[in-house]
Amino acid sequence: MSRDLQYTDNGKLRHFLTIEDLRKETLEQILSTADKFTQFGQREIKKLPLLRGHTVVNLFFENSSRTRTTFEIAAKRLSADVINLNPDTSSTSKGETLLDTVDILEAMHTDLFIIRHAKSGVAELIAQHVPDHVHIINAGDGQHAHPTQAMLDMFTIRQYKGSFHELRVTIVGDILHSRVARSQIHALNSLGVHEIRVVAPNSLLPAQIERLGVHTYTDLLQGLDGVDVIIMLRLQKERMHNAYIPSEQEYFNLYGLTTDSLAAAADDAIIMHPGPINRGLEISSEVADGPRSVILPQVTNGIAVRMAVMAMTLGGASDV
Amino acid sequence: MSRDLQYTDNGKLRHFLTIEDLRKETLEQILSTADKFTQFGQREIKKLPLLRGHTVVNLFFENSSRTRTTFEIAAKRLSADVINLNPDTSSTSKGETLLDTVDILEAMHTDLFIIRHAKSGVAELIAQHVPDHVHIINAGDGQHAHPTQAMLDMFTIRQYKGSFHELRVTIVGDILHSRVARSQIHALNSLGVHEIRVVAPNSLLPAQIERLGVHTYTDLLQGLDGVDVIIMLRLQKERMHNAYIPSEQEYFNLYGLTTDSLAAAADDAIIMHPGPINRGLEISSEVADGPRSVILPQVTNGIAVRMAVMAMTLGGASDV
Amino acid sequence: MSRDLQYTDNGKLRHFLTIEDLRKETLEQILSTADKFTQFGQREIKKLPLLRGHTVVNLFFENSSRTRTTFEIAAKRLSADVINLNPDTSSTSKGETLLDTVDILEAMHTDLFIIRHAKSGVAELIAQHVPDHVHIINAGDGQHAHPTQAMLDMFTIRQYKGSFHELRVTIVGDILHSRVARSQIHALNSLGVHEIRVVAPNSLLPAQIERLGVHTYTDLLQGLDGVDVIIMLRLQKERMHNAYIPSEQEYFNLYGLTTDSLAAAADDAIIMHPGPINRGLEISSEVADGPRSVILPQVTNGIAVRMAVMAMTLGGASDV
Repeated sequence: MSRDLQYTDNGKLRHFLTIEDLRKETLEQILSTADKFTQFGQREIKKLPLLRGHTVVNLFFENSSRTRTTFEIAAKRLSADVINLNPDTSSTSKGETLLDTVDILEAMHTDLFIIRHAKSGVAELIAQHVPDHVHIINAGDGQHAHPTQAMLDMFTIRQYKGSFHELRVTIVGDILHSRVARSQIHALNSLGVHEIRVVAPNSLLPAQIERLGVHTYTDLLQGLDGVDVIIMLRLQKERMHNAYIPSEQEYFNLYGLTTDSLAAAADDAIIMHPGPINRGLEISSEVADGPRSVILPQVTNGIAVRMAVMAMTLGGASDV
Repeated sequence: MSRDLQYTDNGKLRHFLTIEDLRKETLEQILSTADKFTQFGQREIKKLPLLRGHTVVNLFFENSSRTRTTFEIAAKRLSADVINLNPDTSSTSKGETLLDTVDILEAMHTDLFIIRHAKSGVAELIAQHVPDHVHIINAGDGQHAHPTQAMLDMFTIRQYKGSFHELRVTIVGDILHSRVARSQIHALNSLGVHEIRVVAPNSLLPAQIERLGVHTYTDLLQGLDGVDVIIMLRLQKERMHNAYIPSEQEYFNLYGLTTDSLAAAADDAIIMHPGPINRGLEISSEVADGPRSVILPQVTNGIAVRMAVMAMTLGGASDV
Repeated sequence: MSRDLQYTDNGKLRHFLTIEDLRKETLEQILSTADKFTQFGQREIKKLPLLRGHTVVNLFFENSSRTRTTFEIAAKRLSADVINLNPDTSSTSKGETLLDTVDILEAMHTDLFIIRHAKSGVAELIAQHVPDHVHIINAGDGQHAHPTQAMLDMFTIRQYKGSFHELRVTIVGDILHSRVARSQIHALNSLGVHEIRVVAPNSLLPAQIERLGVHTYTDLLQGLDGVDVIIMLRLQKERMHNAYIPSEQEYFNLYGLTTDSLAAAADDAIIMHPGPINRGLEISSEVADGPRSVILPQVTNGIAVRMAVMAMTLGGASDV
């Protein structure tokens, strides 16, 4: 059903909600379109007229000024007008429903909504509701999906490793609550990596996660053994209060990435993190700032990937 | 005095503060200018260079992200630069007067202020204060006026009903506190509708409202009998605590618009609401989302009408 | 060291952090570049393509919607894209360091950061950290410096007084805590005014302030005697609670600028204030709004001066 929702009748990308139901060619088209925009980001004048006259609405029910900024920059580089809304404090608090809010914004002839919401499924709910000419990009919904994050990660992996087929990739951290991990696993599977591993304490591993085609580890060194790509997840500190982990110090001792634990991976392994990082909790500063960290290139690639997804859904990627 | 304030010496619209003192031809010019912008909103590239190089300041002393967004979109479609300010939390809290804040923004060579304030008369106070080349649009002042809302309502009525002369129009709800109702009544009178009715419990009817040329009703069905246009007002829930109405349920029973009560109106009556709606308080979802509701077209028209008023005050409507 | 930081190897202005270490010719170039932009601000279309395709980030760790607005307007008049961030409420609260935040924004290919922070030295810290193609403008750091404010003051003095060499200038108020005063004193010295005086109660005079080449006064009338330029500082009301001054009324009696105390200055003395003003605390309304006040021209000049500094650091002033 999501697949039907994400494509138009003639097979173009209409919405970008979740990696799960997308064709492999679509993921590859996102990567190749982002490639063009990456070269473009290094030019003196970083502005393309592709979305001129279109209005992009950053509709962030859950606040995240960093993610909002990446979409705002991406949209402005494509010459769109951008409206930032954080509806917690405005009309929805007056008793309108969420779909009322969307209807009203859509009635203003806005074209593309970037949706972030603390509840899973909201981006899809909105996509089911809007008329044909309106497009939805999911910027993170609950514990479900964060597909632009996953695609910028894929872009970064390809940039450093060339192709996916031989790669072993390990994701470390709070797999249980992570929409990022879920989207990454779908993307890595679709793009055909050799092996996906997840590492976490049992309390942070979802039941039956193996069904997604991953190998699970509770021991960090075993999980990192020989891998080419390490993806560290952010540990939400509020998990501590819910007794998922015993203490910050113990978590760092067991699952923190340090120069020592990094030695278990391949010599040329790259280290990724969706940010913002917790220094000394899931990763040491030495590793985060070290030569094998590609955390800042991820951010750079995030702009190009978001430009690509906007251009493909709204602008028609063939014009790029 | 307001009339002098709203026009330049040679009779052009300088500020847009209140419907009350405007000439009928001005209202008609707003509608015809908005007509052109409406067609324009359906184009692929919704951008005109009319206000290029001008700076529009959304100066919202009272927060309203929805109204602010409509002005922001309208200004950006005319290629203006837009600055959003919500001065409660900034300089006025440091001890400056309201007019100091305006002076300082005007000294930055800004051209057009969109003013919203919880106190009646603030937009006019500012209009009296600014130099000739600065223009003021009232986006709602206390319980006094909300003239762009009234004009988008007039635009919507004309769009669905063709002309005003034969129409019977009923406004239902909190007439007492409503700047929207006040502006609507002035506009409907000026444009020459056949009959204006207001329906509310006695506690929500202003004294001597009949002097404005309206008929008052306390019974909903009598007030709706045979009318062509129904305008439902938003009920501020805080009125409940002030004992203006006994309870939400009782208010809905007596004054809520439902399929049943709607049957009293003409068969082709349209239903309007300035939003945001309280579903199940002043209007049932069935009616709000039904075929005779024009609530979303009102929002669409709001962009065109605001573009028209901006273009007429700042840009010179003859260029449109 | 700051001088090395503020200039590129071939002597162009790279960052704008503090007046202290800048060459006199740089200050004069800022003034002459701003001159061109001032004429430009009076045109109908106030927009230049100089920074088109560049992204300016207003990174305000300390909130100031007025100063933020001046930079936003200046950047938009140069056709830059502008991102506003107030990081207290976003990523830094999630445990990132300040430099992490900068790194991440810089990774998005942003070009120019406008930094405001409650702690002295933050703009310089960031300037030391960023790569060559990224530029930093200090919009106020703790009690250290506010160099764009100082330069708009210099611009205003030159506009009204022609040249600096014969001038006597008095700064009145909380010298102890004022980054504005510190930057003004450096600029006035560099541009070669005849005499600089500061007037304050002893509790608000820094120790050894005379080393900066100023004369100190605790008596207002003596400090104003015969001067050409009077700069009133804003008194932070919170100083009262810290016992720096006995009471608002007594401060006004001793140090407030009124028609009476103004009589001590030269007949054509101008009165400046960085704003926002406290009417009846450091200045009477009669004087603030009187014919010798140039407080609003300061605001106007602030846009041109900020455009000049942006153009010189980022755009290459020779293109202006």
